[in-house]
Amino acid sequence: MSEFRQNLATGEWIIIAAERARRPESFARVHQSLAELPACDPGCPFCPGKEDATPEAILTLPSPAKPGVWEVRVVPNKYPALAPDDEQNVQCSIHDGPYLKRSGIGRHEVIIESPLHNSDLPLLSKSHMEAVALAFHQRYNALIQIPTTELVLLFRNHGPNAGTSIVHPHSQIIATSMVPGRVRTKLYEGQRYFDKYHRCVYCDLLDYEVEYRQRIIMENEHFVAFTPYASSMPYEMLLLPRHHHPTFSSIEPDELRDMAHLLRDLLARLWRLLDNPDYNFVLDTAPEHMSRVPFYHWHLAIYPKITTPAGFEIGSGIGINVIPPEQAAVDLRNTSGARVTQEEMRR
Amino acid sequence: MSEFRQNLATGEWIIIAAERARRPESFARVHQSLAELPACDPGCPFCPGKEDATPEAILTLPSPAKPGVWEVRVVPNKYPALAPDDEQNVQCSIHDGPYLKRSGIGRHEVIIESPLHNSDLPLLSKSHMEAVALAFHQRYNALIQIPTTELVLLFRNHGPNAGTSIVHPHSQIIATSMVPGRVRTKLYEGQRYFDKYHRCVYCDLLDYEVEYRQRIIMENEHFVAFTPYASSMPYEMLLLPRHHHPTFSSIEPDELRDMAHLLRDLLARLWRLLDNPDYNFVLDTAPEHMSRVPFYHWHLAIYPKITTPAGFEIGSGIGINVIPPEQAAVDLRNTSGARVTQEEMRR
Repeated sequence: MSEFRQNLATGEWIIIAAERARRPESFARVHQSLAELPACDPGCPFCPGKEDATPEAILTLPSPAKPGVWEVRVVPNKYPALAPDDEQNVQCSIHDGPYLKRSGIGRHEVIIESPLHNSDLPLLSKSHMEAVALAFHQRYNALIQIPTTELVLLFRNHGPNAGTSIVHPHSQIIATSMVPGRVRTKLYEGQRYFDKYHRCVYCDLLDYEVEYRQRIIMENEHFVAFTPYASSMPYEMLLLPRHHHPTFSSIEPDELRDMAHLLRDLLARLWRLLDNPDYNFVLDTAPEHMSRVPFYHWHLAIYPKITTPAGFEIGSGIGINVIPPEQAAVDLRNTSGARVTQEEMRR
Repeated sequence: MSEFRQNLATGEWIIIAAERARRPESFARVHQSLAELPACDPGCPFCPGKEDATPEAILTLPSPAKPGVWEVRVVPNKYPALAPDDEQNVQCSIHDGPYLKRSGIGRHEVIIESPLHNSDLPLLSKSHMEAVALAFHQRYNALIQIPTTELVLLFRNHGPNAGTSIVHPHSQIIATSMVPGRVRTKLYEGQRYFDKYHRCVYCDLLDYEVEYRQRIIMENEHFVAFTPYASSMPYEMLLLPRHHHPTFSSIEPDELRDMAHLLRDLLARLWRLLDNPDYNFVLDTAPEHMSRVPFYHWHLAIYPKITTPAGFEIGSGIGINVIPPEQAAVDLRNTSGARVTQEEMRR
């Protein structure tokens, strides 16, 4: 019989429907193999030589090996969901009949992670992956300085089922002028847990999972990766820093390196286990005005897009997951997390 | 510049990004034309003659025209997300380390809406569509009688992007042994609104939209259909009964007929405007133990699946909608809601 499980950090429930379980290889997908892509696509706005197809770069990290070549490049999104307040719009809610609205003030940037059109995070060298993480951190810290910023959200959409149409490897970062509802719910649940137990719910999860071991995928000095107890979809992964930091701003350089290595490791496992599936990842942090609270703990979640949420999930908010996270952890542990080679890519 | 808009009934915010707007015909989709399907598929478990491929029928509505033939048939889902409590599991939450879990108790049924494999709701006659609505109502009323039922959710997944793999026209109904989080949030927001204004938020929305008119798609005696102010995706539609009923159980026969007609009308408009797109619909009702509350009002929402939620939506809970609902209402009003003909289907 299936079971409901509650996410301790959000209060959300999900259904583990193991009777409907499938083997990893049974998840059908339409994928464009990297091997079919050129190293440079003349039609791609993110490829070297097409730098004038994007707005001017905000940050450029040079290649240590090739002088004059960029390794990571951050540009404003040409079609931003949120934009700077050029028109001096007042930063407040306005009545519109019985409803409320606000100006779409914020920032929307693209982190181009490699000059190579046919690369991807699991293929990067360790030092290149560290440069990507450095770009994440530098842009995060710059965006929180803007007075209208209330929260900065970093995310990556990989593949069409994850909502991207551009294949060139990239992540995105959005600074919003309000704390989004989903983040507010998590802050509220974290605060309620702290009020009850005087402990950070994420610190408690971490301690329990490290001791229980059944859902651990991989650990290093500063980070632990596991499949959450109430995973809402197959092979969902959570990357949690061991040190209690409410926000991403205060991560130390050695922690950032460990995060980069573990993230590449997890994405390489996912790539091998599910044949380069579509996925989203989201870096979830408290707003900076809560940078010292005892009840929140930033983290990074990876959501493979190999199943489709349907009417029940939309109406109830309850995910139906056909792979129990204990099984997902076994599958991911038994898959290599080493850097994906050019040879593997061509297979 | 884009704008944030708040959903008055849920408290959720969305972004209207009109600068990214697209024409209806520009939404790319992979669709299987009904014209390519046979009227009866020997491999389909929902086709007449394959009645033994499903568990025994719970409800069968006979065809008024063809004696001995069913028009609508309801069966238990062969692979249920939730199932009856055969093992006498205790109906309570159980600790699992620091987490909570519960047995997956409930019901999961399939409403086969037509014996024809290549039919669909917009193609049904008015009386056939009324029979479908009658099956919805009869199964809803039966499922709320089961002691373990806390909420009944009726939904339809149309097409692969909406999470279905079976093309034979069908809806689903799930009785859950808990009130799902998304429903609890809406109940809570409805109660807060009532506490503040002593009015039902849905009655207020209805009054405002009927007067404002810019977002109205279509009305009849008992129902109003409009595009919500804070639509989270292009062409989202809301079908609201004029009469304040907290739950679906108490709908009157003439109201049910009006709902059937208006639902077919809206799905026909969607079919014509976006070339038979994938969509979900969800019938949202309060739990029956709240059947007399003044602060909730059941409704039916249609969510076209022509865009893909990505990392930002997942992390923030904020949808980015590229078609302002005022424009969506114009497009839908300017499209015919008449029954889709066999000729149109073959085009």
